[in-house]
Amino acid sequence: MTVAERITKLRSLMADKNIDAYVVPTADFHQSEYVGEHFKARKFITGFSGSYGTAVIAKDDAGLWTDGRYFFQAENEMAGSGVRLMKMFVGDTPTVTEYLADTIPSGGTVAFDGRVLSMGEGQEYEEALSAKGIKIDYSEDLIDEIWTDRPVLSDKPAFFLEEKYSGESTASKLERVRKVMKDHSATVHAIASLDDVCWLLNVRGDDIDFFPLMLSYAIVKMDCVELYVDETKLNEQILAEFAKANVNVHPYNDIYEDIKKLDASETVLIDPMKMNYALYKNINCKIVEAANPTILMKAMKNPVELENIREAHIKDGIAVTKFMYWIKNNYDKMTITELSSIEKLTSLRAEQDGYIRDSFEPLCAFADHAAMMHYSPSEESDVQLKEGKFFLTDTGGGYYQGSTDITRTFVLGSVDQQMKKYFTAVARGMMNLSRAKFLYGCYGYNLDVLARGPIWDLDLDYQCGTGHGVGYLANVHEPPTGFRWYVVPSKNEHHQLEEGMVITDEPGIYEDGQFGIRIENEFIVQKGVQNKYGQYMHFETITFAPIDLDGIDPEEMTKPEREWLNNYHKDVYEKIGPHLTDEEREWLKEYTRAI
Amino acid sequence: MTVAERITKLRSLMADKNIDAYVVPTADFHQSEYVGEHFKARKFITGFSGSYGTAVIAKDDAGLWTDGRYFFQAENEMAGSGVRLMKMFVGDTPTVTEYLADTIPSGGTVAFDGRVLSMGEGQEYEEALSAKGIKIDYSEDLIDEIWTDRPVLSDKPAFFLEEKYSGESTASKLERVRKVMKDHSATVHAIASLDDVCWLLNVRGDDIDFFPLMLSYAIVKMDCVELYVDETKLNEQILAEFAKANVNVHPYNDIYEDIKKLDASETVLIDPMKMNYALYKNINCKIVEAANPTILMKAMKNPVELENIREAHIKDGIAVTKFMYWIKNNYDKMTITELSSIEKLTSLRAEQDGYIRDSFEPLCAFADHAAMMHYSPSEESDVQLKEGKFFLTDTGGGYYQGSTDITRTFVLGSVDQQMKKYFTAVARGMMNLSRAKFLYGCYGYNLDVLARGPIWDLDLDYQCGTGHGVGYLANVHEPPTGFRWYVVPSKNEHHQLEEGMVITDEPGIYEDGQFGIRIENEFIVQKGVQNKYGQYMHFETITFAPIDLDGIDPEEMTKPEREWLNNYHKDVYEKIGPHLTDEEREWLKEYTRAI
Repeated sequence: MTVAERITKLRSLMADKNIDAYVVPTADFHQSEYVGEHFKARKFITGFSGSYGTAVIAKDDAGLWTDGRYFFQAENEMAGSGVRLMKMFVGDTPTVTEYLADTIPSGGTVAFDGRVLSMGEGQEYEEALSAKGIKIDYSEDLIDEIWTDRPVLSDKPAFFLEEKYSGESTASKLERVRKVMKDHSATVHAIASLDDVCWLLNVRGDDIDFFPLMLSYAIVKMDCVELYVDETKLNEQILAEFAKANVNVHPYNDIYEDIKKLDASETVLIDPMKMNYALYKNINCKIVEAANPTILMKAMKNPVELENIREAHIKDGIAVTKFMYWIKNNYDKMTITELSSIEKLTSLRAEQDGYIRDSFEPLCAFADHAAMMHYSPSEESDVQLKEGKFFLTDTGGGYYQGSTDITRTFVLGSVDQQMKKYFTAVARGMMNLSRAKFLYGCYGYNLDVLARGPIWDLDLDYQCGTGHGVGYLANVHEPPTGFRWYVVPSKNEHHQLEEGMVITDEPGIYEDGQFGIRIENEFIVQKGVQNKYGQYMHFETITFAPIDLDGIDPEEMTKPEREWLNNYHKDVYEKIGPHLTDEEREWLKEYTRAI
Repeated sequence: MTVAERITKLRSLMADKNIDAYVVPTADFHQSEYVGEHFKARKFITGFSGSYGTAVIAKDDAGLWTDGRYFFQAENEMAGSGVRLMKMFVGDTPTVTEYLADTIPSGGTVAFDGRVLSMGEGQEYEEALSAKGIKIDYSEDLIDEIWTDRPVLSDKPAFFLEEKYSGESTASKLERVRKVMKDHSATVHAIASLDDVCWLLNVRGDDIDFFPLMLSYAIVKMDCVELYVDETKLNEQILAEFAKANVNVHPYNDIYEDIKKLDASETVLIDPMKMNYALYKNINCKIVEAANPTILMKAMKNPVELENIREAHIKDGIAVTKFMYWIKNNYDKMTITELSSIEKLTSLRAEQDGYIRDSFEPLCAFADHAAMMHYSPSEESDVQLKEGKFFLTDTGGGYYQGSTDITRTFVLGSVDQQMKKYFTAVARGMMNLSRAKFLYGCYGYNLDVLARGPIWDLDLDYQCGTGHGVGYLANVHEPPTGFRWYVVPSKNEHHQLEEGMVITDEPGIYEDGQFGIRIENEFIVQKGVQNKYGQYMHFETITFAPIDLDGIDPEEMTKPEREWLNNYHKDVYEKIGPHLTDEEREWLKEYTRAI
């Protein structure tokens, strides 16, 4: 069945139900960053496979809204489908909301599956469309009716994350969450975000791409937890632990009916950033809106988690260092492509004890491909690595001891002076943020300039944040803190830097059609001295792999910067060296030499 | 009459009028930073002469609220007055509002002169006290009734600021202001802040301490301006210019009655940060609250003003450089005290063409005095300058070509290694902010860390902002932009950095009982390259006087920092040198040498 045929079928269903436009976003029921195959409805109805976009199928028009990263890919993939590309943020392209408000007649109906829309999106439609007399039907999963071979919901087994990994029992976490609920005068707390549920109950699963999470919802009450999940995923250990913590298991989709039945006397705490529209609409009792209490608790890793995370990073550093050695010494001796390099790196990670899976979609980009910030190679785009260029690798491993996220840009052979200058500026930015010392109370926006400064000095910029929180076997982009000089409300980086947060530091330079450079370490936010001025804070770097000295021009660096790099490379040699072959270790000595 | 006797008299008046507590803040009718003698009512009723504090005289209690800068001074000055010192921000000291709400009985009355309270303070009292059934009477200036020898309101002459100084006619400014009024759907704009009125009408006066401003209010209408001012201050040139711009003059205090009479169909734009409570309460028509449009316009200096300001800074740099030469070469040969040094510096400034007056209260502080950030010497505190210490001077001149604000800390003789390390850290902070390059859209809080970083690295901090906007013959602290890592709403630094803003850069280190170091330059915000990443911005330094190399340890500096300092000193020598005596110039060559 072609995309065009699917759209014809959808329109016939729409006509039966008197629907004027059907909206298909890219999401699961949990606002997850990656979604499982079952949820790729927008790809099904448009042909466009990118990670970001919303489709609107109207009676005699169809559009796909996505941003600049995907214009080329979307136009290619949707050729002949009858779906128009709507270029977001370009010229006067209307937003989806504006399009619907402008084109659907008063009295008409816009429909969607309210489970895959965020609460905020749903409310935005509600406000804009009701003003025009347009009705909303949020209970229709029409795609399901025409997608005959739709992949079933994942039923992969879950596993319990023992306290030696999690560092805190579910009972203890529940106690803390209930305390915050009381602070908000809430008696019930509904959680739809997978990483929050999994963190709270110390379980992990295998239901979405990359992140080891389990499809589920939780309703936390003062004396028990109602968990909505496919029970077949749960092993005996999990069930035993759930019994201890008073967690009652219900079928996955039952939450939509159960939440309607909450007593009118209850007050439900929900996080508007982490809740789907349908679930929100089904709540009939009083609502308090606030961030999920789990978000901040989860972001501030406990000492057990931190110790594990340090270990995970050593394992990961071994894999990445071995990979660097292999790439730099073999790209000109054998055929290595972007895709085959990913295979190699994943296999090196897999050799490490405790490895579960990669922690996100590996981004390995050669030369000009790396200028596309989110480029991930496909069979069609794959190219062979060659001399005289940069090779950017932004990858990570998921281990029982935590998840990693590391970017290294490798010099293949040698690069010219201008490329070195840029590479050095990126490295300096990364280092200068790493070595910041600051007072408690600082936000990411206070420190971002330290990373961006050396790049701004060249009249350049990377048009994204400098860093993000990293989850422990969870979302690789974890709120509520990051580095960015401007505030983007939807990015949920509203919190100051707190002890125990694990954050990335990844400035870059991207030159269209030429190259991309990004260097990324992770660090832990640590407390320093406390004195009359306040609580001093600093960062403990936990990523250990060489920063390619073939790209570094020491003349561009200050003495403190060179000292930082030399000390860092000394640490890399000491921590990673012992785990390498003699040959690799010899090479590492050279690539961690003082400059 | 002693303070205690004054309080007795006040209480008797309060009893007559059934008033339970009378509040006396430190302010004029215009929320000015410095106030004229007529307005020093809080000093009259408590004896405390500091610049910051609020007195509350209750039936059988009296308190003076001030902050840590003034505890010592306040206790001294109020000894025997019967007024208790209420230490703000210490322990559980209640705020004035809390004190009133807790101690005044329901049905009681709190009174004050609503003209000397800000709109926000008045509203805060209103909310807190009405909740307790306490009444507010804002029409009573009881101090006036007992202060028999109260200095009259200043009647000093005003002067017109010609277009060669202001760079823009009143007509043009009014056109711009009226455009913003229209954007807010306002038909009238009431302005109570002196610097805003004076900027708009291109007049200056001599009515408050230090700032050359004229006591006045303006009501801007679409076709005219109603100006409230003592007409005797206005010369023929001013009256002629006012006639051209349709400015009608009314007696100063008439605004309180006139504003009541605005037609109900009018909409008045007022700035809650810049309006007194009485004036606000007297408005009967519709109100739109927004920043005075003049604030941003005034802060973004025009090319004529900028050219003048650059000139003013050269003049000022000559005076300060001559002063530095004199101090460093004479402190050990004659008796120089903090106060006598101020006299000398003022006289050097007065020699400069176009000098009008100092632009703010000179802060000259020797050794441990400088650890008190706002120390200004008095006859009692004055000390003689001696060897082996720092001498901090934070001063400025007001010229027809604009106002300056410069801090230099001088080394008398030589200082130890630790003091040099601190001095160098302060200098590095100042330089590192100066040489920032950043994208348009940045706020002060994005860049503050550049100045503060070298000081935070030592586990130290200066507990104030890093810099503030500077007015042109107006307020030396001028909103709406400054440098501070945390947001203080009352500081009114809510705007991003805009081209043409003139801002100070003045980090410091203050060691209690030992010394204070502050180094302050001013710079102009300038546009740089515009490219696909946005509009780049940078700072043009306009302050030229040596940074005392006797305090600098080059080993503590990076190469780019040394280069910046060497280039800066080269500029100082080239710009200031030609205006010195041969002897001074020889010395300057040494003190601007490359390191």
